[in-house]
Amino acid sequence: MDQTKLSLYTCLSPSLLHLYDISDSIVVIIDVLRATSTIATALHNGAKEVIPVSAVPECIRIGKEMCGITAGERDGKIADGLEYGNSPFEYPASFIAGKTLVLTTTNGTKLLHMAADNGAKQIITGSFPNISAVCDFLISANQPVMLACAAWKDRVNIEDTLFAGAVISRIKTHFSINCDASNLAETMYNDAKDNLYEFMKSKNASHYHRLSNYGLEEDIRYCLTNDNANVLCFYQDNKLVAK
Amino acid sequence: MDQTKLSLYTCLSPSLLHLYDISDSIVVIIDVLRATSTIATALHNGAKEVIPVSAVPECIRIGKEMCGITAGERDGKIADGLEYGNSPFEYPASFIAGKTLVLTTTNGTKLLHMAADNGAKQIITGSFPNISAVCDFLISANQPVMLACAAWKDRVNIEDTLFAGAVISRIKTHFSINCDASNLAETMYNDAKDNLYEFMKSKNASHYHRLSNYGLEEDIRYCLTNDNANVLCFYQDNKLVAK
Repeated sequence: MDQTKLSLYTCLSPSLLHLYDISDSIVVIIDVLRATSTIATALHNGAKEVIPVSAVPECIRIGKEMCGITAGERDGKIADGLEYGNSPFEYPASFIAGKTLVLTTTNGTKLLHMAADNGAKQIITGSFPNISAVCDFLISANQPVMLACAAWKDRVNIEDTLFAGAVISRIKTHFSINCDASNLAETMYNDAKDNLYEFMKSKNASHYHRLSNYGLEEDIRYCLTNDNANVLCFYQDNKLVAK
Repeated sequence: MDQTKLSLYTCLSPSLLHLYDISDSIVVIIDVLRATSTIATALHNGAKEVIPVSAVPECIRIGKEMCGITAGERDGKIADGLEYGNSPFEYPASFIAGKTLVLTTTNGTKLLHMAADNGAKQIITGSFPNISAVCDFLISANQPVMLACAAWKDRVNIEDTLFAGAVISRIKTHFSINCDASNLAETMYNDAKDNLYEFMKSKNASHYHRLSNYGLEEDIRYCLTNDNANVLCFYQDNKLVAK
């Protein structure tokens, strides 16, 4: 371990975030299926901004105020009162360019607000569709890093852990990593990297199970593919914007 | 997933235990380095009972009341006011047989009391030195299982996760496992199983790092070896006893 390098930690669940001091860190919010993948896609396709909100009524209210598109699902269906869902395929440039997307998700939004409340120095969102932008930024930023997995109702999940592992495998030589969760994530990623989709399927990952029951295999494949929406998603003034 | 089988879950940190209903479950407390390894060793070597306590003053008080041996470390040294440490090698049969050991540890004891407070149906402790006894019991008991890792100050650690994975690899056909943390643990164990010690070392596992700095490599090797103290450690009436 090189003490002269900046630290990198992985937090596998929002319920563990309080264990870490993130006041000097860039926090990467990871909600692979599908919040942060959809955020990257919308911003890459020219959305003006994405406003992440926790609850459906708030989504409706802010959607009206901002003349934005309201989106969000509950139990695999568009939530009552909202217009669109959580799939990245709903946000092509022809639809979303120049618009404000007000998106309500459960796990990812909760964690993002938690990181903001805990005083994170900077917050970005990470997903396979924008993994290179995330890694390039983390290498260049010269700040400690917290890879924060949104998990599923606070239970550790495979896909967010895999993304943390993928980032670590790319950038680890730039950081000092004294964090077993990071080792664990990278070990699993190395096992899975030849075919992330088949790995998820073979492990019967709980979220794979849920989404494939909704017929969303193509969403899963997209959300496990690198760099199809390679933009940095930066959180400032309660909004995510492309940088 | 076979819905007719009983469930098995893995909880990677005490901070996640509240996410699970353990009222019908056998909870396996896992604190590989070194609490649960030392507990198995003392009971295997004939200790009458092991009383796990959280704090040093309580350890001293109960030690006096029970005419027991007081043991516990803080920062790698025997805690002030106690007689012995946390190493399994301190408890050969010639010393511990017939005696009461009052043991204070931080992570493992905290989790054990948390599981008891949360209404666990049964509590046992698990470690590589007694892995076969644990697995045999879990297979025969016909109850849901929670593999509960003590972690390190609530941060996920490699060695407890490895033990959960080792148990899962042995007993998974008897259970329905819809739990990404269990898949993660088993995946890591499969990577590590040919040489757990070298895996810990190569990953620079944080606890390996701490203990090897105290010159405790032999403790680590023992605590990663199967069945040298193959006894079931059962928690009842605030004590751990051999069954």
